[in-house]
Amino acid sequence: MIFLKNDYSLGAHPKVLDALVKTNMTLADGYGEDAFCYSAADYIRHLIACPAADIHFLTGGTQTNMTALAAFLRPHHSIISADTGHICVHETGAIEATGHKINHVKTREGKLSPQDIDDVMISHEDEHYVKPRIIYISNSTETGLIYTKAELLALREACDKHHLLMYIDGARLAMALTAQSNDLIFEDLPKIADAFYIGGTKCGAMFGEALIIVNDSLKEDMRFLVKQRGGLLAKGRLLGVQFDALLKDEAYLQLGAHANAMASKLAEGIKAKGYEFVIPPETNLIFPLFPKELAAELATRVMFETWPYVTDTHQAIRLVTSWGTEENEIKEFLKLI
Amino acid sequence: MIFLKNDYSLGAHPKVLDALVKTNMTLADGYGEDAFCYSAADYIRHLIACPAADIHFLTGGTQTNMTALAAFLRPHHSIISADTGHICVHETGAIEATGHKINHVKTREGKLSPQDIDDVMISHEDEHYVKPRIIYISNSTETGLIYTKAELLALREACDKHHLLMYIDGARLAMALTAQSNDLIFEDLPKIADAFYIGGTKCGAMFGEALIIVNDSLKEDMRFLVKQRGGLLAKGRLLGVQFDALLKDEAYLQLGAHANAMASKLAEGIKAKGYEFVIPPETNLIFPLFPKELAAELATRVMFETWPYVTDTHQAIRLVTSWGTEENEIKEFLKLI
Amino acid sequence: MIFLKNDYSLGAHPKVLDALVKTNMTLADGYGEDAFCYSAADYIRHLIACPAADIHFLTGGTQTNMTALAAFLRPHHSIISADTGHICVHETGAIEATGHKINHVKTREGKLSPQDIDDVMISHEDEHYVKPRIIYISNSTETGLIYTKAELLALREACDKHHLLMYIDGARLAMALTAQSNDLIFEDLPKIADAFYIGGTKCGAMFGEALIIVNDSLKEDMRFLVKQRGGLLAKGRLLGVQFDALLKDEAYLQLGAHANAMASKLAEGIKAKGYEFVIPPETNLIFPLFPKELAAELATRVMFETWPYVTDTHQAIRLVTSWGTEENEIKEFLKLI
Amino acid sequence: MIFLKNDYSLGAHPKVLDALVKTNMTLADGYGEDAFCYSAADYIRHLIACPAADIHFLTGGTQTNMTALAAFLRPHHSIISADTGHICVHETGAIEATGHKINHVKTREGKLSPQDIDDVMISHEDEHYVKPRIIYISNSTETGLIYTKAELLALREACDKHHLLMYIDGARLAMALTAQSNDLIFEDLPKIADAFYIGGTKCGAMFGEALIIVNDSLKEDMRFLVKQRGGLLAKGRLLGVQFDALLKDEAYLQLGAHANAMASKLAEGIKAKGYEFVIPPETNLIFPLFPKELAAELATRVMFETWPYVTDTHQAIRLVTSWGTEENEIKEFLKLI
Repeated sequence: MIFLKNDYSLGAHPKVLDALVKTNMTLADGYGEDAFCYSAADYIRHLIACPAADIHFLTGGTQTNMTALAAFLRPHHSIISADTGHICVHETGAIEATGHKINHVKTREGKLSPQDIDDVMISHEDEHYVKPRIIYISNSTETGLIYTKAELLALREACDKHHLLMYIDGARLAMALTAQSNDLIFEDLPKIADAFYIGGTKCGAMFGEALIIVNDSLKEDMRFLVKQRGGLLAKGRLLGVQFDALLKDEAYLQLGAHANAMASKLAEGIKAKGYEFVIPPETNLIFPLFPKELAAELATRVMFETWPYVTDTHQAIRLVTSWGTEENEIKEFLKLI
Repeated sequence: MIFLKNDYSLGAHPKVLDALVKTNMTLADGYGEDAFCYSAADYIRHLIACPAADIHFLTGGTQTNMTALAAFLRPHHSIISADTGHICVHETGAIEATGHKINHVKTREGKLSPQDIDDVMISHEDEHYVKPRIIYISNSTETGLIYTKAELLALREACDKHHLLMYIDGARLAMALTAQSNDLIFEDLPKIADAFYIGGTKCGAMFGEALIIVNDSLKEDMRFLVKQRGGLLAKGRLLGVQFDALLKDEAYLQLGAHANAMASKLAEGIKAKGYEFVIPPETNLIFPLFPKELAAELATRVMFETWPYVTDTHQAIRLVTSWGTEENEIKEFLKLI
Repeated sequence: MIFLKNDYSLGAHPKVLDALVKTNMTLADGYGEDAFCYSAADYIRHLIACPAADIHFLTGGTQTNMTALAAFLRPHHSIISADTGHICVHETGAIEATGHKINHVKTREGKLSPQDIDDVMISHEDEHYVKPRIIYISNSTETGLIYTKAELLALREACDKHHLLMYIDGARLAMALTAQSNDLIFEDLPKIADAFYIGGTKCGAMFGEALIIVNDSLKEDMRFLVKQRGGLLAKGRLLGVQFDALLKDEAYLQLGAHANAMASKLAEGIKAKGYEFVIPPETNLIFPLFPKELAAELATRVMFETWPYVTDTHQAIRLVTSWGTEENEIKEFLKLI
Repeated sequence: MIFLKNDYSLGAHPKVLDALVKTNMTLADGYGEDAFCYSAADYIRHLIACPAADIHFLTGGTQTNMTALAAFLRPHHSIISADTGHICVHETGAIEATGHKINHVKTREGKLSPQDIDDVMISHEDEHYVKPRIIYISNSTETGLIYTKAELLALREACDKHHLLMYIDGARLAMALTAQSNDLIFEDLPKIADAFYIGGTKCGAMFGEALIIVNDSLKEDMRFLVKQRGGLLAKGRLLGVQFDALLKDEAYLQLGAHANAMASKLAEGIKAKGYEFVIPPETNLIFPLFPKELAAELATRVMFETWPYVTDTHQAIRLVTSWGTEENEIKEFLKLI
């Protein structure tokens, strides 16, 4: 079977694994107060050119999103998100379980716009409504798209206009920052977002996400909140070791670039055979529209997920590449169509 | 000023007030464990022909909705509601503050259909999604419409198919049950819904709602939940006294019928003058579409709220009648248009 | 039966009832934005000599405590309270249901001391513990005792030392401020507490409590929080009308003084007969220790509650007087012992 | 520096690390639905002789405790625990953040007794109180003690009497089951507890705990709850791989036995020098009472934590051994005293 189902089905990238093995018998203080975490945090601050940023390492995306968002909000505050946002659909109501409503916004392709923000704000006028306080976007999105720098700046402006904070879910930040159409660099992020995370789980780590808090007013007591939500790993050192290994020497971006390159080859091959995409391919998640018979046949040879777009004759599917996808898998896939 | 802004701007209907005055110096046990509450509860069980129903009296609608819904659900359960539902927009996220997501459904006019339920269920397939467990509808709705018996039975069937519970917000049940197009009676409700409430605040009481739990599996320990959410009034007797006064001798339905009759006269007069409605008038909330200039002029003589439907030339407004609306107010209004 | 069971088993004081009757058919805007509430709030600001205080009217004590405390705290913050505090035992975990731990402190007689605060703070050292952020006291306490001005100032000092807020539950403030040993006046409260409430339910109102927020940093968006927790009464005017009637012409303090006077007569009579008290009588809750046979016999003629203090031969009971207790009830009781 | 500070400051036991390395490039489905997790779960069911048990793998102890306990309870339910319980003090209010009160019980040495349960139950009589629904114990406890089989059976009996569930935190189960005074085996646990967890983090794993649900009524939808609380690791396979490696060939118990053996040598040496213990040494956490000068001197050569027991002349400290503690560390320590 060719595997194009997701980007979290291998263990860790060999560099990360080696680092874990090498440091395994080194004694380190618990709960992230160790030299590995301090080193990784320092490196991140350097990478994003934001010496005052607070860095917290957590184990997964849902945990990071719910911990950060709930920490930033008072009980009546809500979160504005595209209704395809990971927090809206794929986190089993983790956000609501912390007490907060998400204002779901219907978007065309999963990207939030300043107009969307205006629309939500205009209909939330007084204390009978929740008070939107933060926007949630992911880069790249669950639809495989990225935000350009101009788009992010426009969102920031909308946030400032409405006294809103801005949070970026970077589960696939490695792919976002290495997409062909991308014009963002690490250093731009803390200038635009109040908080964001650099995703490890889908970008080469065994597990782990690095939450970065830029806005000073959001920093206080964050370790209490991480602990309370179950995210303060006893052997926090494991996260420091991994991010250190991942981020140094640009490994992180190389892994992202590889996943994108594989997806790009795949997309080009699919286009060349005359098929279309329901969402334009931009990163490592692509969404070709195949005749139903072909989709059914592929399912016997390839592991992938279907996408909820279907016509009388065609079915959209989701193909995902990762740092571990090999070129011959792409070639084999293309032979099948 | 003519007052057509809402149905909760007077105190209590005189019958209710008299009952409160008469019983004021009678000693009664606290927290709803008194003869007045027992009598009112018995009367409700008789009225709805459901001797096994549990009755709890609470002080307001938001409180009743959040207390009941949260009591019925486990943390991963969600609630399906039309996106115009009171719990979706006008309760400041009270439901989410108890930890539960609401699956907002876009509807044409504020009424939920079996198809809406099917659509939600099909997209909630496994543990990465919340698990819908109950539907929330209001009768009459926030758009002034009612559900027919057939519509409710169809919803019930959809609920059974999907292992869902059914809850009816009866904030304006008096108006629903006395609408011209209505074919429901009190006795139908416990046969269809797992729980519902008979609204007092908007139907003649000073304050108060009577929550009725029909489904045995939802009854356990409900008084704990009411107390925990702040809804167990120390002088619970006040609620028993009011519902006793309201419900006996059909006062409740007469008050609803009066509000509807006033709205009906209003709607007929408006139609006679050639204006249209954005939602067909059915109960005591009606939504005429007026030229903008007329709407602006009316605002100087009439208290009402605008409705978020607007064209280049016209603006919809919401007119509300109540048990206290007098016929001459209607006549005066009609003179103005 | 003589009734000495609690102070919330009558309706409203006649002055309050009259005011409700008189204003019943006056139209008023909903949710506390009406002339009655504005007037009552202004009067309270005058009474406490704190022109900048924010006033919110809620329907009951549990609701007020949970709404206020949860509004003031971030998720990792806890509340320090005597373990006899109303929020600790008699509110069905309402506080915890909003997500916050209460640090229960074992005290001798239900009053919190600066030393208690120090002890809690010393054992909460880092992010593995909750972070205490506010102290909860009630005046008078659930044990019928009051805090002197000096005691409150000492608590305030301890709070300042530890960066803690201070909240006073005034469910029985009328009795506290009129106890013989009291040296506090309304004007002292906003100088000492960050927030407190003037209790209506147990002090002459039909229902209702007036929450007063003094500390500017706690005021923002409070109406959202009140609405979200189900405490924003549609006919908020009812609360304004009641507090206006209660507070003007010193009615409130007279009602408290009456309850205390009745309790005082009761206590003197009991002492005269040679019985002791497990807690020294100070306000309208007194706790005599009676031989078990006497306690049993009394139970057939008097409504009261037992108190969890019992020896081989004796049983403590709780006797409560209210604004409605009549002198002949006291005399009859004393004849029985 | 000799390290006797805790049992989570190394990485993984070499067997576990090897297994992670060997399986690193094997593709596996996400979120614990993979062959490694299935194999580990099967093995656990075999080990505890409970073929119907449900097994869930989570990443840490706080996360496991809060996820399990909150999943088992309705909002008004509380948890009975010794006030030294991990959930009471060292989890930053994680339990309360899910909405539940913990009934803290003062115990002499951190172990809960049937009498403690009776005492709590007698004071929680009606809906004004939370309703205790489950007891939380840890084995071994935070004080290094274990429960004998007879003690656990007596607690079970008390639970049955009061309609309570029973949950065992097994963060250090390896040490509990290999203590000299222990008479419990794996197979006993599902016969006594409704749910428990086998701790990995402190017993040789890199990270991870295996939650075991025995009581059928608690099993439904557990994966939803784990996901919602952020505990469903994307690469769940990592947990399966680790528990497989840990549990097979009795590695788990051998690691526990080693930690205990080291602690035992330490305790004997300390006793031999004439020092006493504030809690009798039983597993890998021991609490000697040293003269203050000695404690201060040790602090310059040994990493350990102080224990909150202090006299004018003496200070208790906590010494912890682990699977990685070496005999020469013990010898060196003993030379220092």
